[in-house]
Amino acid sequence: MDDIIVKYIEKPSLKEPVVVEGLPGVGNVGKLAAEHFKDVTKATKFASMYSKYFPPQVFVEENGVIRLVSNDFYYLKGTKKDQKDIIIIVGDYQGLTPEGQYALSSKMLDVVEEFGVKRIYTLGGYGLGKMIDKPRVLGAATDEDLVHELKKQGVIFSKGEPGSGIVGASGLLLGLGALRGMRCACLMGETSGYFVDPKSARAVLEILSKILKMEISFAELEEKALQIDRITSQLKEIEQVIEPETKGEDLHYIG
Amino acid sequence: MDDIIVKYIEKPSLKEPVVVEGLPGVGNVGKLAAEHFKDVTKATKFASMYSKYFPPQVFVEENGVIRLVSNDFYYLKGTKKDQKDIIIIVGDYQGLTPEGQYALSSKMLDVVEEFGVKRIYTLGGYGLGKMIDKPRVLGAATDEDLVHELKKQGVIFSKGEPGSGIVGASGLLLGLGALRGMRCACLMGETSGYFVDPKSARAVLEILSKILKMEISFAELEEKALQIDRITSQLKEIEQVIEPETKGEDLHYIG
Amino acid sequence: MDDIIVKYIEKPSLKEPVVVEGLPGVGNVGKLAAEHFKDVTKATKFASMYSKYFPPQVFVEENGVIRLVSNDFYYLKGTKKDQKDIIIIVGDYQGLTPEGQYALSSKMLDVVEEFGVKRIYTLGGYGLGKMIDKPRVLGAATDEDLVHELKKQGVIFSKGEPGSGIVGASGLLLGLGALRGMRCACLMGETSGYFVDPKSARAVLEILSKILKMEISFAELEEKALQIDRITSQLKEIEQVIEPETKGEDLHYIG
Amino acid sequence: MDDIIVKYIEKPSLKEPVVVEGLPGVGNVGKLAAEHFKDVTKATKFASMYSKYFPPQVFVEENGVIRLVSNDFYYLKGTKKDQKDIIIIVGDYQGLTPEGQYALSSKMLDVVEEFGVKRIYTLGGYGLGKMIDKPRVLGAATDEDLVHELKKQGVIFSKGEPGSGIVGASGLLLGLGALRGMRCACLMGETSGYFVDPKSARAVLEILSKILKMEISFAELEEKALQIDRITSQLKEIEQVIEPETKGEDLHYIG
Repeated sequence: MDDIIVKYIEKPSLKEPVVVEGLPGVGNVGKLAAEHFKDVTKATKFASMYSKYFPPQVFVEENGVIRLVSNDFYYLKGTKKDQKDIIIIVGDYQGLTPEGQYALSSKMLDVVEEFGVKRIYTLGGYGLGKMIDKPRVLGAATDEDLVHELKKQGVIFSKGEPGSGIVGASGLLLGLGALRGMRCACLMGETSGYFVDPKSARAVLEILSKILKMEISFAELEEKALQIDRITSQLKEIEQVIEPETKGEDLHYIG
Repeated sequence: MDDIIVKYIEKPSLKEPVVVEGLPGVGNVGKLAAEHFKDVTKATKFASMYSKYFPPQVFVEENGVIRLVSNDFYYLKGTKKDQKDIIIIVGDYQGLTPEGQYALSSKMLDVVEEFGVKRIYTLGGYGLGKMIDKPRVLGAATDEDLVHELKKQGVIFSKGEPGSGIVGASGLLLGLGALRGMRCACLMGETSGYFVDPKSARAVLEILSKILKMEISFAELEEKALQIDRITSQLKEIEQVIEPETKGEDLHYIG
Repeated sequence: MDDIIVKYIEKPSLKEPVVVEGLPGVGNVGKLAAEHFKDVTKATKFASMYSKYFPPQVFVEENGVIRLVSNDFYYLKGTKKDQKDIIIIVGDYQGLTPEGQYALSSKMLDVVEEFGVKRIYTLGGYGLGKMIDKPRVLGAATDEDLVHELKKQGVIFSKGEPGSGIVGASGLLLGLGALRGMRCACLMGETSGYFVDPKSARAVLEILSKILKMEISFAELEEKALQIDRITSQLKEIEQVIEPETKGEDLHYIG
Repeated sequence: MDDIIVKYIEKPSLKEPVVVEGLPGVGNVGKLAAEHFKDVTKATKFASMYSKYFPPQVFVEENGVIRLVSNDFYYLKGTKKDQKDIIIIVGDYQGLTPEGQYALSSKMLDVVEEFGVKRIYTLGGYGLGKMIDKPRVLGAATDEDLVHELKKQGVIFSKGEPGSGIVGASGLLLGLGALRGMRCACLMGETSGYFVDPKSARAVLEILSKILKMEISFAELEEKALQIDRITSQLKEIEQVIEPETKGEDLHYIG
């Protein structure tokens, strides 16, 4: 099997779309923000990415039907004059290994490059390890002009933050995107990192709505956060019982 | 060497066979059920799959002859009018890594697809972490029609169970099979997960016998469970002594 | 770089040679036995195998010159009438991962197959986890005729021993060799597994000398064991200080 | 994506240049020495190497602009008559896995081989696990002539040191370089291994300056050491909060 499989539902006709990405990470800020954005804009799924870099797992939907874990691509046509077409990338997991992370981010860029993408916004959380009342949105970008542009929208660029850089897809899409000449930025909402954080996701989306010149409703954001929190807790509870499944009865003595 | 090697003993002529799969996992329910089914139906081995995704290990049979760890394919011709031809997949191990799991499940599908397989039943355990008196059989499937069909046979579809989805081959065969247009279902017997569970395996096989319209004798199921339990315990005991074998004397300080 | 590099010093002309293999493992019995055998027979090195499946490491010889970790092939021409030509495989490490182990064993078979090898003896230790006074030599083979042949030479075939099978190169060469139609056997000396065990290595070599119809001197075996023990201890002591070298200063937070 | 990507800024014209390499490792001696050497000589960056064997991470510069983690190649033209052209290799990380380490070192050799490189000096630390007042510089080389040459410059060759050999790029470049016929040496400054060690780096650079017949200023070495120390500490502090980023919310139960 190919390392990564992309299955298209359709190939939409898009005009220099802007990419918005949010996958699981610190405080699930990026995932929550991007999924909420996808839901309230009623974006249309057009492709799914399956990969051996994800866990070997299917989810079972409420009707008993399974779904192989994936990252998914949605699109949204700009309706107003100065609104861009948008591609939204969300998903169940990030790659399990560093090699998988590089391969998956690179493949995402392959997919969106075909649609003429020149700008990418990745959404994530910036973990502080302590509770925070009014989360700021920190930024990083592939060039100084973009930094200046984002500063005007209220994004904070603070020397030495994040000191350790950005890990995972939200960082790699910038790093690998820059190598392809794309202009990319990461928006990181401050968060404790202890739970799924709707306040931080909202802060990120408020900036994004200014950048994209779109209204975003936050009515169902809290509910969405609770939902992601429930799934996360459930997975953790079941974890110990489930563990042997992938490993077989007696694999634990190897490597 | 190829990542996965399939060695055919014969290429049987089968008519749209149904696949039944059971590999090591929670409570070894799937492995026990599938091996028992293979034994009582006197199915014929036609292929073995070897792979670098399995442990680097041979087993030593009672006569002193070795056997490289493998997953094996058996077949069974339907003898009665409404009985389907069947392919049974059993084996020593699942893939050691997520990547190996994807590659192995994909290769299994390659093998059975050649025989015109359109339906797959994977068998597994659903770990509860506590003792259970009357194990139910939970289900998941690739489409709603199949869900309804299985409900009629007594399979339970319960919202939010299994909450974490299905990991390993029993899940992947459904997920990857669906991408190839195959209709697949997983039958999960409830089990504590603490030991090899013949009661749960029997519950799964009773459902399977209804689905396949075949009688299955359970006379030797307990004995089979004890046998698998013995092997499992033995492997665990020897584990500490064996460990250095794969690693070399001084590898432990590397990653 | 290729996953495995084989560098030939020469391609000796050998007549259906027999392979003897011994690499690091339980009690270092196989490594000690094979290296001693190589030394006392004054066998000639003809090829080295380097691989990314080994640790990223060079050893520093007494004269300050480095040597990349490797597995090495030696040969020995039969001098008496009924003596076979012999290839001896020894080395610093086994593969670090299951995948590496498969790849390396498979490549070893590629190398020796070119010389017309039809028989392989792998040497190893059988860890008991307790001290043993008179180590027996247990066996396993690829066919029953070979089992009978070895029984006559004093090799023990005992039901359920080794219960967990044979892991590492000593097992894989049999498993993968059998798939190529080679006849192979593993000779396992009983050992506590707690230290480099010359008594166990001697027991294995005494059997091997009968099989190969060759006298083997054991005069320097104890000294060889002490030498291997020193290297092992040294590596363990330095371990903690060395550890960061491969990892970089701040890699520990990833995977 | 390719496993390793090399992006050239320019292809300088160099005459049989000598390579100096220093990457993160024990006491960061090699990294500190090579980066200081690069800075004081005002060497020019000509290529960057990106790879899936590095962490999936970007760093954020003070101006808010990101930089994908990399290893980098600098060059320096010899200005005096008996000064060689020099290529300096520095970087953020070593490969995360043994396989990655081999692949990266091999690719480095591909790059420098193109420029006609015949000699390589790798810089590293030799961890003692205790404080050391006057660090010696230990050596290892690919041939005895080079050992003698280095002894004359004050490099210590001490039987049994380093007993465990040299791991990581500083060792592999020698091992793999030798297979290509390059003459290479490793210079290891003694260090406790507990912190970034400017004293050890200075000892290494003093030897290097003799070998290369170049004056090296040490005025800013202490400052450089503090700077690397700060980055290291920062990464460690943030570590716990950052950890989930690459893993996703619920990946921890897999392998």
